[in-house]
Amino acid sequence: MEASILLFTIALLVSVAQCFVPHTTPPLSPAPSRTQQPRLQRRTAVHASASPHSASFHMPHSTPLLDRVRSPSDMTGMSLPELKQLANEVRWEVIKTVSQTGGHLSASLGVVELTVALHHVFDAPDDRIVWDVSHQAYCHKILTGRRDRMLTIRKKDGLSGFAKRSESPFDAFGAGHSSTSISAAQGMSVGRSLQFKKRNNCVAVIGDGAITGGMAYEAMNNCGYLKSRMIVILNDNGQVSLPTGTASAGGTDPAGALSGYTARLLSSQRFKNFREVAKGFSKLFPEPIQDVSARLDEYARGFVSGERATLFEELGFYYVGPVDGHDLDNLVPILRNFKTTDTTKPIVLHVKTDKGYGYPPAMKASDKMHGVGPFDIATGKQHKPKTVAPSYTSIFADTLIGLAAEDPKVVAITAAMPGGTGVAQFAKKFPQRTFDVGIAEQHAVTFAAGLACEGIKPFCAIYSTFLQRAYDQVIHDCVLQRLPVRFILDRAGLVGADGATHHGSFDLAYLGTLPDLVIMAPSDEVELMNHIQTAYEIDDKPSAVRYPRGNGYGLEYLNKHFNYGLDEMPTKGTAVPIGKGRIIKEANEDAPSKVAILSIGTRLSAAIEAAHALESENPDLGVTVADARFMRPLDIDLIRRLARTHRAMVTVEEGSVGGFGDHVLHFMALDGLLDDGRCKVRPLVLPDRFIEAGSQHEQYDDAGLNSPHIVNTVKRLVDMKTVPIMG
Amino acid sequence: MEASILLFTIALLVSVAQCFVPHTTPPLSPAPSRTQQPRLQRRTAVHASASPHSASFHMPHSTPLLDRVRSPSDMTGMSLPELKQLANEVRWEVIKTVSQTGGHLSASLGVVELTVALHHVFDAPDDRIVWDVSHQAYCHKILTGRRDRMLTIRKKDGLSGFAKRSESPFDAFGAGHSSTSISAAQGMSVGRSLQFKKRNNCVAVIGDGAITGGMAYEAMNNCGYLKSRMIVILNDNGQVSLPTGTASAGGTDPAGALSGYTARLLSSQRFKNFREVAKGFSKLFPEPIQDVSARLDEYARGFVSGERATLFEELGFYYVGPVDGHDLDNLVPILRNFKTTDTTKPIVLHVKTDKGYGYPPAMKASDKMHGVGPFDIATGKQHKPKTVAPSYTSIFADTLIGLAAEDPKVVAITAAMPGGTGVAQFAKKFPQRTFDVGIAEQHAVTFAAGLACEGIKPFCAIYSTFLQRAYDQVIHDCVLQRLPVRFILDRAGLVGADGATHHGSFDLAYLGTLPDLVIMAPSDEVELMNHIQTAYEIDDKPSAVRYPRGNGYGLEYLNKHFNYGLDEMPTKGTAVPIGKGRIIKEANEDAPSKVAILSIGTRLSAAIEAAHALESENPDLGVTVADARFMRPLDIDLIRRLARTHRAMVTVEEGSVGGFGDHVLHFMALDGLLDDGRCKVRPLVLPDRFIEAGSQHEQYDDAGLNSPHIVNTVKRLVDMKTVPIMG
Repeated sequence: MEASILLFTIALLVSVAQCFVPHTTPPLSPAPSRTQQPRLQRRTAVHASASPHSASFHMPHSTPLLDRVRSPSDMTGMSLPELKQLANEVRWEVIKTVSQTGGHLSASLGVVELTVALHHVFDAPDDRIVWDVSHQAYCHKILTGRRDRMLTIRKKDGLSGFAKRSESPFDAFGAGHSSTSISAAQGMSVGRSLQFKKRNNCVAVIGDGAITGGMAYEAMNNCGYLKSRMIVILNDNGQVSLPTGTASAGGTDPAGALSGYTARLLSSQRFKNFREVAKGFSKLFPEPIQDVSARLDEYARGFVSGERATLFEELGFYYVGPVDGHDLDNLVPILRNFKTTDTTKPIVLHVKTDKGYGYPPAMKASDKMHGVGPFDIATGKQHKPKTVAPSYTSIFADTLIGLAAEDPKVVAITAAMPGGTGVAQFAKKFPQRTFDVGIAEQHAVTFAAGLACEGIKPFCAIYSTFLQRAYDQVIHDCVLQRLPVRFILDRAGLVGADGATHHGSFDLAYLGTLPDLVIMAPSDEVELMNHIQTAYEIDDKPSAVRYPRGNGYGLEYLNKHFNYGLDEMPTKGTAVPIGKGRIIKEANEDAPSKVAILSIGTRLSAAIEAAHALESENPDLGVTVADARFMRPLDIDLIRRLARTHRAMVTVEEGSVGGFGDHVLHFMALDGLLDDGRCKVRPLVLPDRFIEAGSQHEQYDDAGLNSPHIVNTVKRLVDMKTVPIMG
Repeated sequence: MEASILLFTIALLVSVAQCFVPHTTPPLSPAPSRTQQPRLQRRTAVHASASPHSASFHMPHSTPLLDRVRSPSDMTGMSLPELKQLANEVRWEVIKTVSQTGGHLSASLGVVELTVALHHVFDAPDDRIVWDVSHQAYCHKILTGRRDRMLTIRKKDGLSGFAKRSESPFDAFGAGHSSTSISAAQGMSVGRSLQFKKRNNCVAVIGDGAITGGMAYEAMNNCGYLKSRMIVILNDNGQVSLPTGTASAGGTDPAGALSGYTARLLSSQRFKNFREVAKGFSKLFPEPIQDVSARLDEYARGFVSGERATLFEELGFYYVGPVDGHDLDNLVPILRNFKTTDTTKPIVLHVKTDKGYGYPPAMKASDKMHGVGPFDIATGKQHKPKTVAPSYTSIFADTLIGLAAEDPKVVAITAAMPGGTGVAQFAKKFPQRTFDVGIAEQHAVTFAAGLACEGIKPFCAIYSTFLQRAYDQVIHDCVLQRLPVRFILDRAGLVGADGATHHGSFDLAYLGTLPDLVIMAPSDEVELMNHIQTAYEIDDKPSAVRYPRGNGYGLEYLNKHFNYGLDEMPTKGTAVPIGKGRIIKEANEDAPSKVAILSIGTRLSAAIEAAHALESENPDLGVTVADARFMRPLDIDLIRRLARTHRAMVTVEEGSVGGFGDHVLHFMALDGLLDDGRCKVRPLVLPDRFIEAGSQHEQYDDAGLNSPHIVNTVKRLVDMKTVPIMG
C-alpha cells in the first residue's frame, strides 16, 4: 500500500513536469504587482478579446458547451480549454439571469471557475459540496439541472436564491445564514465514515467573511481534532460583504484581525501553481511517505512561503495556498489530487477570487453589485423602483444620527450588515462610535453589554433572523443583568425574495418570553422614530425595536390613514410612554355590534383598511383599531378596555405562534377576561410553516395577514358572510 | 515620553537581575520533568510541611492575613511572602466552605494564586476583572468582602455560585455560561476609551475549555483588529471540564485541536520566569522602543520558544507565556508590568494551573472534584444523599445505549457536558459513536445536522440553557431542513443551586414557535424511556425531548401515584403516538363540578397531588388530570374533550410565558373553545422574572408550581376558599 502511494507520488511529481506545464497558465505575478496593476485592465472586461490562456471573459454569442450540460456528469470528460469556455458561458448566463431577476450577482461571478472545477472533478451529488451562505450558488444551480428555471429565482414558486435540500439532490446542505458549512460537511464526512462508505469527499466552500463566524472556528477546531477527511475551500475575496467605504472604528472593512491575517497570507506568499502545490503534497500522505519526501516538501515550503499559515495548521488543518481561484489550469489538478489523496488531516485550500470577476460594472461598483435589482447589462445600472418614502432602515439611521449628535455616549454596533441596518449611514458621521465586528453576532451582543457596563448607550443593529445567532447572549449577558443594550431588529417579519432562511418570524416569541425586556414594534416610520427615542431613554434595562424590511408610507398616506395631521415629516422622535398602546380609530359608539382589532407593528395599515371595509359593508358594525406598540410590557389597561367594550377582538402581528397574540390571551386568561365569553378572541399570526420566496405582499397573502384576511376573520366572528380571497 | 519608557525598560531589566532573583522561586523544571515527577508528591499535600519557596500548601491553624482583608485594597501593601501566606489561607477557606456547602471546588482552587495576584496588582473595582463562566470566582468572592457570607453560597437568598453584578461592584460581569469574558471585557475597554478614562485595565480570565467557544474567537478576532487595550489570561488547566476517562471519538478529552495546541505550547516551551518575560516586553512597547530592544527580544524568544504561539499572534494578540499560575514570584511582577505598560496590542497571558491545586483529594479525583456536594475534608468523600431512583440523565443514557446496541446508526453528540447529559455513560459503550465537540454548541447542532444528512440518527444532548447558544442552528440547519436531529434537553426547567443563569426556562417558548418540530416533555422516568424511543422512531423531521435535573420517582411511587402496575422498571421504552397525550386520572363522572389539570412534564406529580387534595376537600368536585406529553403537535382532541366536559382547565408547565399553556390558549381561541365561557382557563407558568439559587423544591414554591399553588388556582376558579401557602 505505502509502496503504491510512493510510486504514485513519484509519478505525480514527474507528471507535473511533463504533462501540466505546457497547459499551465504562467503563474500570476506576486501580490505586489497585482495591486500595482489595475485588475480590470489586466483581465476582466466583458468585451475584451484575450488569449485563451488569459483569465479574461468573452461574451459568448452562443452557449454550446453549457447547452450540453444537463448534469455535472456531462462535464467529466471536458478538457481544460473546454472547461474554460464553459466557465465563460456560465458567467454570461449568471449575468443575463440576474440582470432580469435581480439577486446576488457578484458572489456567484467570483466562483464561476471554482464551481466549474468542483463539478468537473468531484462526483456530486455523491460527493458532497456544501456552499456556505450559498448566495454564491447560482453557477452551481445552472450546472446542476436548474438552468431553465433560473429566471424564477427568488420569486414565488421559483428557485430559491440559496442552496436548498428539497430543491435538488445536488444541494447537499441548505443555507442562507453564514458559517455553517464546515460543521455540516464534517457531519457528512463523519457520517459516511461511520457507514464505511469508501468514497467520502465532503467539500465546504466558505468565504473569508463567513470564516470569521464563531461556529466556523468551533468546526475547524473539531475537524482538526477528529482528523476528519474533508476539504475546506476558503474563498477569499478580501471583504466581509461590506460595501467599500463602510467605516468601522479603527479603520474600514474588513472588520476582524483574521481578515488582516488572510490578506497578509496573500501578500506575503505568491500564488502557488500546481507544481508547487504538488510538492507540498508530501505532508498530505500518511506517515511513511511523509519522511521520504519531507525534504522536498521543506524546500517547496521554504521557497514559496514568507509567512506560514500557522493559524489553520494550529487548528489541525493542512494548509494549501493561496491559489488563483480564476485559474482552472491550477484549480483542476489541485482538486483532482485532493479527491484521490488519502490525508491524515483535513485540508484548507486558500483560493483568491474577485467578487464580480469578469463583469466590469460589478468590479467597479463600491458594493461589487453584491445584491441587486434587475439591471442593464451594458452599464450595470439598476432599475430601482421609485419609492414615495424612505426605508425604515434609513429612518432608523437618521434618528440615531440625531441622537448621537447630542449624546456622545450613543454608539452603533453591527455584525457585517452595515448597509442593511443603516449603520453604514451612521458610520459616515461617527466612525469612531461605529463598531462593525464582522460576522460575529454573539460577540456583537456581549461586546454591547460590556459597553453598557461603562455607561455607554449601545444600539446593536442586527437583522431579526441573525439575532437568533446571539439568543443566549441576549438572555445571559443583557437581559439577566438588566444591561441597557438597545436591540435594533431590521428585517423583522417576512422579508420577500430571500425567503424562508431570512424571515424574522420568531423574534416576538423568542424575545417575548424573556423577563423585563422592553419590546417595541412601530407601526410606521414616525412611530419608528418615537420608538428609537424611547429605547434611547430606557437606560436601566435592555430594550428591542423590531420593524420590517421596506419603506415607510410617506406623509400623504400617514395623514390620510393614520390621521397624523402633519405638515412635514418630523426630524426626530418623541418618546412614548412605556407599555402604552394607542387607539387609532374608535368604533362608532352607537354601533349595535363592536369589534376591536389590536395590531402590533406595520400590519396596522392592513387593520385600518380592514376596519373601513367592514364598516362600509355593514353599518351596524363598529370597528376599533388599536396599535399595541409594545409586545412587552403589554398595555393591560388597553386590553381590558377593548375586551370589556367589544364583542370580539382580533390580534394581528407579523410573527409566529407564541408571540404577541398569545401573550394577550395569556393575560386575558389570568385576568378572567375570557371567563364569560363576552369577548371572543382570534389571534392572527404567521402560519405554522416556513414561507418561501416571493414579494412581501405575496407573502402576506400566503400568511393570511393582508386586510381581506382580517376582514374575513372579523366576519366569521360576527356571523357575516365571507368572500373568498383571490391570491 | 519614549525616553522615559526606554529608561524604565532598562531599569526594569536591571531590576530583574538585582531585585527579583533572590526572592524568586527557582523556575519549575521544564514540562518533561513535570510529568515524570508525580505532582502530588512534589507540591501538594494539605498536611505536608514544606519550605516557604515550594508551592506546597499548609493547612493554616488561623487566618491572620485573610482576617485583615475586607477589600482588595487591603492587599496592596502586602509583600510577596505575605501574599503567599494569604493564598494558603484563601485556599483553606475555599476548601472549608465548599466542604460544607458543596459547589464548584477545584476550579477555584486552581486560581488561588492568580486571584491573589490580580487583586494585589490591579485596583478593582475600578480596574475590571471579568471571570469567564465564573464558577472559579470563590476566592475572588472571599477577597472582595463576601467572606462572611460564603456559607450561603448557592442557597436560597445566599451568594450566587457565579459572578453577579447585582451582588458586588467587584463582579464586573455576570456569567455562568462560557466564553463571554473577552467580549465583555473588550466592551468595557472600548467604553472607557470612548470616555477618555485614563486608567483602563480590563482583564478577562478564561479557561482553556471556554476559549474553544466560538464567541471567544469572534472576540479575539475583533480585539486584535481594534487593538483594544486589554489582557486575556488564558487559564490553562489542561481540560475542558470533562471528567478524565470520558471518551470522545478519536480519543479522550480534551475535545478540540486547540486544546492539543495549547498543550503543545506548554510542552514545547518551558515555563518563563519574570526575567524572560521582561525581555519579551520590548514588543509591548510602542514602535520607537521596539527597535531598540528588538534584538534582545529575539534572543529571549529564540531562547525560550520551540514553537511560536502564532495562533494568538495571528489574531492580533501579543502572547506571553506560559507561566506557572501557582508561582506568585512570577505572576505578580508580570501582572504589575502589564498594568503599567501601554501596549499597542491586546495581550494574552498563558498561565498553567492545576485544577484542585493544593488539595490532594481533588487532584486525585477523576473529575478533580469539579462540582461537589458537601464532603469530608480529610478524605474528600462526598456526603451524597441516598436516592430511591436513578436520575433522568442516567435513564436517558441507558435507553440510548439500548437503542445503539440494536442500531449502528445511533450516535450521541454533546458539547463539553458528557457527565451531565449521560453521554459519558454512552461513550463507555460506544466510544466511536460519541462526539464531544467541546464548548461549541453551535457546531454540535450543525454537525448533528450533517450526520442526519447521511442517514445517521444523531442524539444531540445539550442542557436546555446551553441550547440557547445554538438556537439559530436549530432553526436554520435542522428545523427548516426537516433533518431528523434528536435534541435531548437535560436540565429543562428550574435547576436548583446553579440559579438564574442555568435554568432551562425558555425552551418550550423558543422551540415551540418553530414549525413542525416535535417537542416532548416526559412526566416521569418511564415516560422518558418512551419519549426517547419515540424520538428515535421519528426519522423524517427533528424532535426534542426536555426533562428536568434530578431523579425519577422509583417504582413504588409510580405504581402508587401514576397507576403503572409494574412489577419492575422496564428496560426499554415504547414509542407513544405522536401528538397524543394521556389521561392519568378521570374526574368522577357524577361530580357536580368538574375541573381539568392539563400538565406537561414532571410537574404532573404536583398536579396529581393537587387533584387528590381538592377532591378529598370537596366531594362535589371532580378533577381530571391529563399529561399532554407533547408541546408540539398539541393533542387537540384531548384539549377539545377537556374543554367541553370541564368547567375549568388549569395548564401546568415548568416553563416561561409563551410556551405550552399559551399554545393551548391559542388553539382554543382559534377553535372557538373560549367563545362561550363554558371552560375557564388558567395557564400556570414560571413567573416573569429570574429565579435565584435554592433547592428545586424552594424554586417551585417561589414559582408557584407546587401542588398547593395548583390547588389554590383551581379553588379560585370554582369559588372555593383558598388557604395561604406556607413557603
